[in-house]
Amino acid sequence: MLKVGLLGAGRIGRVHAQAITAHPKSKLSAVSDALPEAAKSLADEHGAQARSSGEIIGDPDIDAVLIATPTDTHSDLIEAATQAGKAVLCEKPVDLDLQRAIACQRTVAAHGQPVMIGFNRRFDPNFSAMKAAANAGEIGQTELLSITSFDPAPPPVSYIKVSGGLFRDMMIHDFDMANYLMGDVPTVISAVGSSIVDPEIGKAGDVDTAVVTMTYADGRITVIKNSRRAAYGYDQRVEMLGSNGLLQAQNMLENTVVKSTSDGVVGAKPTYFFLERYMPAYQAEWAAFVEAAVSGSTVPVTLADGVAALAMAEAATRSAGSGGPVRMDEILKPVAK
Amino acid sequence: MLKVGLLGAGRIGRVHAQAITAHPKSKLSAVSDALPEAAKSLADEHGAQARSSGEIIGDPDIDAVLIATPTDTHSDLIEAATQAGKAVLCEKPVDLDLQRAIACQRTVAAHGQPVMIGFNRRFDPNFSAMKAAANAGEIGQTELLSITSFDPAPPPVSYIKVSGGLFRDMMIHDFDMANYLMGDVPTVISAVGSSIVDPEIGKAGDVDTAVVTMTYADGRITVIKNSRRAAYGYDQRVEMLGSNGLLQAQNMLENTVVKSTSDGVVGAKPTYFFLERYMPAYQAEWAAFVEAAVSGSTVPVTLADGVAALAMAEAATRSAGSGGPVRMDEILKPVAK
Amino acid sequence: MLKVGLLGAGRIGRVHAQAITAHPKSKLSAVSDALPEAAKSLADEHGAQARSSGEIIGDPDIDAVLIATPTDTHSDLIEAATQAGKAVLCEKPVDLDLQRAIACQRTVAAHGQPVMIGFNRRFDPNFSAMKAAANAGEIGQTELLSITSFDPAPPPVSYIKVSGGLFRDMMIHDFDMANYLMGDVPTVISAVGSSIVDPEIGKAGDVDTAVVTMTYADGRITVIKNSRRAAYGYDQRVEMLGSNGLLQAQNMLENTVVKSTSDGVVGAKPTYFFLERYMPAYQAEWAAFVEAAVSGSTVPVTLADGVAALAMAEAATRSAGSGGPVRMDEILKPVAK
Amino acid sequence: MLKVGLLGAGRIGRVHAQAITAHPKSKLSAVSDALPEAAKSLADEHGAQARSSGEIIGDPDIDAVLIATPTDTHSDLIEAATQAGKAVLCEKPVDLDLQRAIACQRTVAAHGQPVMIGFNRRFDPNFSAMKAAANAGEIGQTELLSITSFDPAPPPVSYIKVSGGLFRDMMIHDFDMANYLMGDVPTVISAVGSSIVDPEIGKAGDVDTAVVTMTYADGRITVIKNSRRAAYGYDQRVEMLGSNGLLQAQNMLENTVVKSTSDGVVGAKPTYFFLERYMPAYQAEWAAFVEAAVSGSTVPVTLADGVAALAMAEAATRSAGSGGPVRMDEILKPVAK
Repeated sequence: MLKVGLLGAGRIGRVHAQAITAHPKSKLSAVSDALPEAAKSLADEHGAQARSSGEIIGDPDIDAVLIATPTDTHSDLIEAATQAGKAVLCEKPVDLDLQRAIACQRTVAAHGQPVMIGFNRRFDPNFSAMKAAANAGEIGQTELLSITSFDPAPPPVSYIKVSGGLFRDMMIHDFDMANYLMGDVPTVISAVGSSIVDPEIGKAGDVDTAVVTMTYADGRITVIKNSRRAAYGYDQRVEMLGSNGLLQAQNMLENTVVKSTSDGVVGAKPTYFFLERYMPAYQAEWAAFVEAAVSGSTVPVTLADGVAALAMAEAATRSAGSGGPVRMDEILKPVAK
Repeated sequence: MLKVGLLGAGRIGRVHAQAITAHPKSKLSAVSDALPEAAKSLADEHGAQARSSGEIIGDPDIDAVLIATPTDTHSDLIEAATQAGKAVLCEKPVDLDLQRAIACQRTVAAHGQPVMIGFNRRFDPNFSAMKAAANAGEIGQTELLSITSFDPAPPPVSYIKVSGGLFRDMMIHDFDMANYLMGDVPTVISAVGSSIVDPEIGKAGDVDTAVVTMTYADGRITVIKNSRRAAYGYDQRVEMLGSNGLLQAQNMLENTVVKSTSDGVVGAKPTYFFLERYMPAYQAEWAAFVEAAVSGSTVPVTLADGVAALAMAEAATRSAGSGGPVRMDEILKPVAK
Repeated sequence: MLKVGLLGAGRIGRVHAQAITAHPKSKLSAVSDALPEAAKSLADEHGAQARSSGEIIGDPDIDAVLIATPTDTHSDLIEAATQAGKAVLCEKPVDLDLQRAIACQRTVAAHGQPVMIGFNRRFDPNFSAMKAAANAGEIGQTELLSITSFDPAPPPVSYIKVSGGLFRDMMIHDFDMANYLMGDVPTVISAVGSSIVDPEIGKAGDVDTAVVTMTYADGRITVIKNSRRAAYGYDQRVEMLGSNGLLQAQNMLENTVVKSTSDGVVGAKPTYFFLERYMPAYQAEWAAFVEAAVSGSTVPVTLADGVAALAMAEAATRSAGSGGPVRMDEILKPVAK
Repeated sequence: MLKVGLLGAGRIGRVHAQAITAHPKSKLSAVSDALPEAAKSLADEHGAQARSSGEIIGDPDIDAVLIATPTDTHSDLIEAATQAGKAVLCEKPVDLDLQRAIACQRTVAAHGQPVMIGFNRRFDPNFSAMKAAANAGEIGQTELLSITSFDPAPPPVSYIKVSGGLFRDMMIHDFDMANYLMGDVPTVISAVGSSIVDPEIGKAGDVDTAVVTMTYADGRITVIKNSRRAAYGYDQRVEMLGSNGLLQAQNMLENTVVKSTSDGVVGAKPTYFFLERYMPAYQAEWAAFVEAAVSGSTVPVTLADGVAALAMAEAATRSAGSGGPVRMDEILKPVAK
């Protein structure tokens, strides 16, 4: 039984708590949060203890730590927890600062503890079926990947201001999905963005609608579309053209009921947002982490994956600013030094 | 060039006139109608002559006759035209009176002229693709056929009164579709019906909603559902279960546009009614008739097919009245004498 | 916390055990089974005790009993458990013998304990969304209901022999669905059946393919299609025609991935069988039972609902034998005495 | 009756000949082609005369000229025909040389004759339904347009070499579609391209897979994806995100038959290529031209539309070469002088 300490009792922390408890081989031992009442309330629901993050990381009885705290604490907590010998699952993004994330990656490498980054979408049954079909050669050689990823409604501008921007906060999931499905990182990234959904987002220095085009060394292309608003719900679709055909992962719907009247043929909307759509993915993600932590096998999403996606977000942010293409090796050059 | 006389210049007559003119190997020579102005107007549009049906049938220059007159004239006109050596395409049903239809069939047999019955749905590209797939064994042995056939709106009660009733007027298409797809006629027919759409239809002695179940000598089953009203348009679907799978022919839609809003995901309605849905089928039907008439090959839908469907309508009408199953051999027994 | 005794540790018992444990307000206390090891194994997994059914029913600490034993024990166990003051959730069907079920219903009425019958499909989110839409008048007055219900593969003939036959074992779910969606029981039932999937099923006196037509006092009609085999998986679809439109509940699919190649456009199959399709429904069913048991409100599916569906199965069985329609009041007449 | 001279008797010329003959208000009078036998054969089929293009343009009895000759002759023929007082429908693109096209536009402006460019997709019933819905405000303010346009198979490399390249030959349709649906031309265009389908295409200096991103003065964005190969047929989809929802125009399918077996649920492929998909659009295009030519109203797709799409192709070609964004005003600057 894997004893787990959860750092962060916010919305996403609660999702993880549920997955930890439901899994037959893991147990929620302790919960911490900047708001002690939040930690206590969540701990009580799961028969766990409310403690500080320091106590949790320092407790030799705790095997694994799940980090669901604000982004600017991720790198420090990852380093501390791995130093203390814990297996770590950390929410995305690793950091808003690429250099800090890379430093964290080096520190962790020294300890050898498993660190998995919470790119939950890799565990969505639709995307993983798509990946399996592509890997099995069902559409031949892959050529062109398209990702459509629209949120139902924009977050408050106050959140936007501390989020790191659309590319680091939202599209980072899609960068990782591209890496997952293409099995490679791109060489050049071009981005355009606009604050057409809400001008206040533009005033806060961010965009709410963006298209990113990425090219690979072998000539393949990926295009990602993001919008902070889709009136009909959470739109999460992927399609991949290959030499022998096309794979599409379509939205999951609220139900299968279709109504035909004189007004047309009406089906259900996509499931509303990430909790509705990706709950099974969070459970599968946790199961994969437990499997790796218990067996000692490699985690399926590494800290390096987290750094790669962050570097792509950095490149896209720069490209959207300058209007021109950005080479990935320029982003990573200062690092390599 | 097949020279064609068209008897009947009503709505369906106009549909056929168009198909005759559009076909490279046929030409509309003459049109008749009980209303001489209707005949003249349609003839003028196609550079044809308005004549009486007697003149048309008697003219040795005319090769083929298309009968689109009221049902009670069909048998007489089929007999006269075949006696005069014409190839005949006659709209369904052959007759409302089964005995009269059978007598007609015998008369025609004596002359040896081709008589094709206008079961246009056999020429719908969806249903014929389904038939081809079933014949190719793509779902193994067929077991259970379901036909859904709803009109968009009921005809006037005045029409209902002279129509011969839902089974002879509307479901006769579905009886023929069952014969076409199952490659056999059933042995027992059970029907239930109701006038739930419009009580006036009930007062006129007819039903507007009906379900018919048919069993075959080899244990297969067909079920047909009819309604005189579907608020969303013309609903024409067929599905066939076999030992290895299911075939479904779905509705054709007005267009492929889908709109997703906070109200749901809305697609287009089915094409409205038989003219919109089956125009390509009417053209394919005429092409098949021309091919048979010119080459001397057998017509793909025979007078015997028309009589079989009419006998099934007769059985269903009786069953809906009595509530009990009706054997097809009882329907055909007096005929056999 | 509702303390629950589970009678029966077979496949469906295991499904229920999971739902009981997962629910925050219920706890699995004890498990019984004719095979003691089966009871022990399941009890161990859930931290419960393996006991005899008599001990469970006799234990005043146990609040509710879930009956998942062979059908021929249902009536006795329902009576014993309600006599002992338990709330009861019993798997369908109530009994294979309609008279016995009715006697049970009378006995239970005397005790006043809640007895819910496990028609899990009422809790399927698709069917309940459909019911809600129909009740809200979204398609006007309902007229014609169609239920398609195909199992992926037939059970062994040994099971068929003790099952009570297709109408009592399989279609009973659809009879209940019709009662649920139409809000009424039919007056006349006609059935045809065939053993076309497997002749051995015919030799065992049962059918494997059947169509049932039911008419209601107000002229509405329901048609149900059953097959013991669908090569593509579990086919569970419902459609309802009303004066203003059509509602359809379509199959749930294994995933949303669509592959387009030169062979066509291929989507996933329906979820395989009842465990895959209806797991959320079993959970919702249990939640509804707990809610009723704890609050004292009426259970949403009553013993009377179970008896009604059984009477319809009886009528269909007789109709399939005789070939003629069977009136529901004839089925219930001897009972009324 | 509009008397029409057709210049060019190749594949697309034959498509137009059919539409001209089928239209009740137009008549094919004469056909020219560089290969006299091709002109004669097509003319014979339609009861027209084979003549030289000079004779056709010079014949005062001919009212309109349809130009379906090789692209490098378009500008000269447009100028000659308008000078001779004809109404002109010219296939796309206007020219491969933007400056020549602009010069042609000026010459034509002097004569005042109607010149329509053959962007047939504007007349596709799906795209025009989408445009109508967007114009009616059904998705609020438009924000993000996506066009997917894949051909079933690449043309021979010999064709590629004279085609002007993917952006001028293939994507020009999508540039026009964007102008049509967005009601504006973009300010900046970025393109990436690759010859991943066939390296020979790359050696010929062209790309076969490309993504173009376009931004507008008001912050809206369009993304266009092109591939010369889709193993499943002609893929022609458009989607438009707006403040209140999404509009999608999906592919038209060969038929509506769906087959479910143990291998999955298989539907028909998209209609194969542009003749199959856009035949109704060619007919509607011709009808719109006849309407404008006869009534003197403005043609629905002007020479200016043709020049705008060509300028966008020029910008995309330059961007794909340099890797950086290209401003539309730089493309048009030399022209403005």
